[in-house]
This record gives sequence, C-alpha cells and structure tokens, in this order.
Amino acid sequence: MSIQCPTPNHEDEVVLLGHGAGGRLTAELLDLLVLPAVGGGTGPLEDAALLPGHPGLVMSTDSFVVSPLFFPGGDIGSLAVHGTVNDLAMRGAWPLALSVSLIVEEGLPLAELRSVMASLGKAAQDVGVPVVTGDTKVVGRGAADRLFINTTGVGQRHELLCPSAALARPGDAVLLSGPIGLHGTTVLSTRERLGFESDIASDTRPLHRLVRTLAPLGAAVHVLRDPTRGGLAAALNEIARDSSVAVEIEESAVPVPGTVASACDLLGLDPLVVANEGCLVAFVDGGVAEGALAALRSLPEGAQAVRIGEVLPQGPRGRVTVRTLVGARRIVEMPLGEQLPRIC
Amino acid sequence: MSIQCPTPNHEDEVVLLGHGAGGRLTAELLDLLVLPAVGGGTGPLEDAALLPGHPGLVMSTDSFVVSPLFFPGGDIGSLAVHGTVNDLAMRGAWPLALSVSLIVEEGLPLAELRSVMASLGKAAQDVGVPVVTGDTKVVGRGAADRLFINTTGVGQRHELLCPSAALARPGDAVLLSGPIGLHGTTVLSTRERLGFESDIASDTRPLHRLVRTLAPLGAAVHVLRDPTRGGLAAALNEIARDSSVAVEIEESAVPVPGTVASACDLLGLDPLVVANEGCLVAFVDGGVAEGALAALRSLPEGAQAVRIGEVLPQGPRGRVTVRTLVGARRIVEMPLGEQLPRIC
Repeated sequence: MSIQCPTPNHEDEVVLLGHGAGGRLTAELLDLLVLPAVGGGTGPLEDAALLPGHPGLVMSTDSFVVSPLFFPGGDIGSLAVHGTVNDLAMRGAWPLALSVSLIVEEGLPLAELRSVMASLGKAAQDVGVPVVTGDTKVVGRGAADRLFINTTGVGQRHELLCPSAALARPGDAVLLSGPIGLHGTTVLSTRERLGFESDIASDTRPLHRLVRTLAPLGAAVHVLRDPTRGGLAAALNEIARDSSVAVEIEESAVPVPGTVASACDLLGLDPLVVANEGCLVAFVDGGVAEGALAALRSLPEGAQAVRIGEVLPQGPRGRVTVRTLVGARRIVEMPLGEQLPRIC
Repeated sequence: MSIQCPTPNHEDEVVLLGHGAGGRLTAELLDLLVLPAVGGGTGPLEDAALLPGHPGLVMSTDSFVVSPLFFPGGDIGSLAVHGTVNDLAMRGAWPLALSVSLIVEEGLPLAELRSVMASLGKAAQDVGVPVVTGDTKVVGRGAADRLFINTTGVGQRHELLCPSAALARPGDAVLLSGPIGLHGTTVLSTRERLGFESDIASDTRPLHRLVRTLAPLGAAVHVLRDPTRGGLAAALNEIARDSSVAVEIEESAVPVPGTVASACDLLGLDPLVVANEGCLVAFVDGGVAEGALAALRSLPEGAQAVRIGEVLPQGPRGRVTVRTLVGARRIVEMPLGEQLPRIC
C-alpha cells in the first residue's frame, strides 16, 4: 500500500474522528502507525485473516460503537453479529464461532442491556453461529458512551472459494447484492431525529448464505467485499488499489432507494459513501456473471442483486470511475474521512 | 452455576461499576442476563472456549480498559497481549493468532497511540504470536476514555493438557507461580498518585511458556487459572464452585511483596482480591506436585513458584478457607464487586 499524501509529523497530532471512518485517514493511520507496530502492512487488507497453520480457517474482529444503540431495522446487538459474520463471509467462510466482549458504561439501564443481548443472541441463532466465549467490562459514567461491543469470529472457508481484494481481473463483472445507503442514512436520521427513519430501515443482515450460494462457482469468484464504512466508494477503491485494476460502474445501475436519495440530497451526502450492513459486492469472471446473479437472486437477501459495472480491460490502475446518467465519466474518490460518525 | 442472592428486579436497575469487577456481581450479570441470551451458562465458565468442530483449538476474548494507559511494568498494549495469551494458556493452549481492535477517543495524541502500539507489537513478538487482523474505531471526545483495546486469540492445545475449572479433585496440590498483588496495586497507585508506584511494578507477563513446561504432566494438571480481576480469592472460589470441592490455603505460604502489603494496609484492601497479570494457579495431582513446582521454577517467570494449599479430602463443597498465621481458619469469600476499577 502506498501513501499519496505527505507524511505529517504525527508526534504533534491527535486522533481525529475521520481516522475511524474507513477512508483515506483510516488507511493512513493503519499504514503509518498501527500496521508497522504489529509487523503487518505488506499484503492487501482483507476483511478477515487466514489462521496460521490452519489455512481452512479465517478470523475477523470488529468493535461496534454505533450511536444510538437502537435504530429501525436493528440495534448494536444484531449489528455486532452480522458485521463479523459478514467479514468472515467476505473471505469465503462460514461462521464457526463468535466471541462477544462488552464495554458497558456505569448507569446503563439493565433493561437496555438485556434487550441488546436478546437481539444479539437471536441474530447469532438465526445465523447458526454459537457464541462460545465473552468478556464484560464496566467503566465509570462518562468513560464510555453507553455500550460498545466487540465480536470476533472464526470461520471455515468453503473449499472452492478463495476470494481476495487483490484478485480482481480485467473483464470481471461487478455485482451488487442489493440497494445501498440504507444503514448509514437510517442511523444518522435516527440519531439526529431527521424524520427519514420512519420510512427506512437499516439493511443489517447476515450475508453468509449468499456467499454459500456462490461457492460452486469456486475460483471464478475473485473478490467479495461488504461495503460498510466508507460505502461502495471505499470498497471499490480498495479493490481497485489492491488488484491494480480500473473499475467502472454505471450510475443508473446502482440501486439507491428513493428515501435514501432524498436523505442524501438534503444532507449533502453521496450515497456511494454511505455505509451498508446487508449487501455485498462481488467481482466475478465475466463468463459466470449471469450464473452468479441467478445464484444471488435465489435468496431473499439477494433478490435485488444487479450487475453494476466491470473491470476495464485497460485504464489507470487503482482508479474507480462512474458513468453518469448523462453519459459522462467521473472519478469515484476514496472518501477522505468522516461523513457519518459512529454508524457501526 | 447457582445464585445465592435473591433475584432483583433488573428492569428498574442499572449497570454498576461492580458488575465489571470479576466478583459476585459480575457472575450475577452473566448468569441472569448475558448467558441466557446467547444460550450459554450450563457449564463452568472457563478462560477460553473450545472451538466447535476443532477440539484442538481454543478461543478467548478480552477488552482492556485500564486507566491510566501507562504504568510501571507495562501499558495497555502489552497488557492486552498478555491477558489474552494467558487466557488461552489457562486452557492448556499455545497462542496461534491474535486479533486487535481499537476504540480510540478523538483527541488522543498520536504519539501515545504509537507508543501503545509499539508496546503491543513488541509483546506479541516476545510471545511469538502474530497479530493477524484488526479494527480501528474512533469515537468523539467524551464518548470513550482515551483508548480501549480488545484482543481475541486462537490457540492450539498441548496434546496432553486438558485443564478445566471443573477438574479439581480432593488431594490436589494448589500451586502459585509467583507473588500476588503487584498489578492491581501498581495501577491503582499510579492512577491515584499514591507514591507506591516508584517501588513496585505490574507483573504483566505471558504465562504460555510456564504452561508448556507443565504439558508433560498431562492429565495430572487438573486446573490452570490466572488470578486477574477479583484476584486469588475469585480464582479459588470459582474453581471450588465449579469443581464442588473445598480448598484450603496457608496464609504464610502466599507470597505478598512488602510494598504490596503496605499499600493494601493503607488502602484497606485484601491482597487476595487484588488483580494479577503475571502469575497462575495450578491445581495438580498431589503426586506430581514436586515435579510441577520444579518445572515452573525452571523458567524465570516461575522462579518464585510455591505450593500454597490443597484440595481438602472433605469439607464444604465450593468453600475456600485460609489458615492464618496464628493457625485460625477464615473463609475466603468471593469478592462482591469493585475494589479496584479499571485495572485491566
């Protein structure tokens, strides 16, 4: 991974909200500070890592700090299960086990904690993954905002699947399993009481069954990624960068629900950078695109799957472009920092 | 697990600091609220869980919220590595992989984050465990206290070892690998500037090599536990409860460093409930006690290992007693709640 911007003098600086937004500032923090310390940073950053000595197993971790804790379509409990299950799925894996670690602010009503845990337990049961271990810490009032949840998962890879952000190839079809923008706009609208939340709901859901339907396509499935923080724009840019390819999508093909479009218009947001928690992007060999679409559409969570673009036969490596409704091309940039804090 | 106290009406109540202290309130929160939601709570609570379908692998998770971030002997970075490595070790496992998930408060100086990450990376390297995946979230000022770190680990069990908190048996020797009370008193003294911190340091260290030296003793190693939150008192009470045995220790045999004793005297603390991060308790068959002690003492981190007590041939099940210096017996109670908040 390369850094385009000049290296700031980090010793004088502090962490910004944007460092956690999944965009360029996050990448910079990881590249310059976190990864060198732990001996990483040489390969592509994947949603989940292979377990050393056990190449059939993958591991993924995520801490959830969403505010508010409850929102239409879900809550921090279900989100914490889906997020990690989906990160495992994006490496072609079926979830075997989850750990759950809570950081609770003193004073949180036990009724709220009970409600979150019930939702978390139900989500895990629906997925079919056991919660095998956990941890609970309590910090004083004001030392945390109500409740944070870390989930870490171990998954078993489908034998034929070995997707990676570095495996996109010219000629690949870019597929999207469903509409974008619902999660981020729902959480933001709920938090700020903008009123859209009565018409929309988060798309938070598990994607492991969608990935299982793609498993028979094996190595023709090149990349799987769920466009969470930083939205579709960040996911596509990461793939284009890690695979050194040029990606182009059709604006008219990207499904943006009407309410999401209205909310984004009002808030000055680009739906391409809004977080999702229930759809995936698949880069598949062009020859199997129709079969992959049919497989995705065979499940309720993929019923609205569409082809949104392709990997260009040639073009600037690492660049993502969108063909607009009027036929022009514009560059889809990697989001810089924070547009929607604490949406997951 | 059984609850002795009457069930309160949880819907009217809120989370207390003591719910995170590793004592009776923590057990109650887990039993009544957390475990039922995730379908657990039927077996003994172990430091790490067996991975379904892969009985040679174990998984453990811990979120670290220690305050301050830096203290004599360590910091939140090294502590986060040692804590999870040790939880894996207590199930007889060697660490294979760690995940690291950060929750950072906006405004944390990057220099501090860099220092913590360097320490974390060094600790992982010293242990010999790779950090394979991670996550970084940033929350606004006031929504977290500087930095929280979750580490989750996967470990490979030593073939001959299968320790469990439920396996203590009458006639077992109770061994302790080193002095107690250093971590908790050091962190508390540093946070409150009590002055003891110039004379003591946290014992935070990895214990996986100590466990490896015990591996040849195989099934004669019945229980391994690191007495962290709630200290030796909580660890022994959990073992006595989960194994339905009576445990007795000799007060004179328990090594308490002079500075720890002074600090505890001043603060009104019992060294038995103060957290440790660098010693382990082993319940081994009485016949192998000398061999186990010799094995522990063969490594620097076990040089001060001692035999502190035994499992009584009969006695009240679940009870822990201490024979005092004057020959009297007193009950070592499970600590109720929080004496030392945020020490790990």
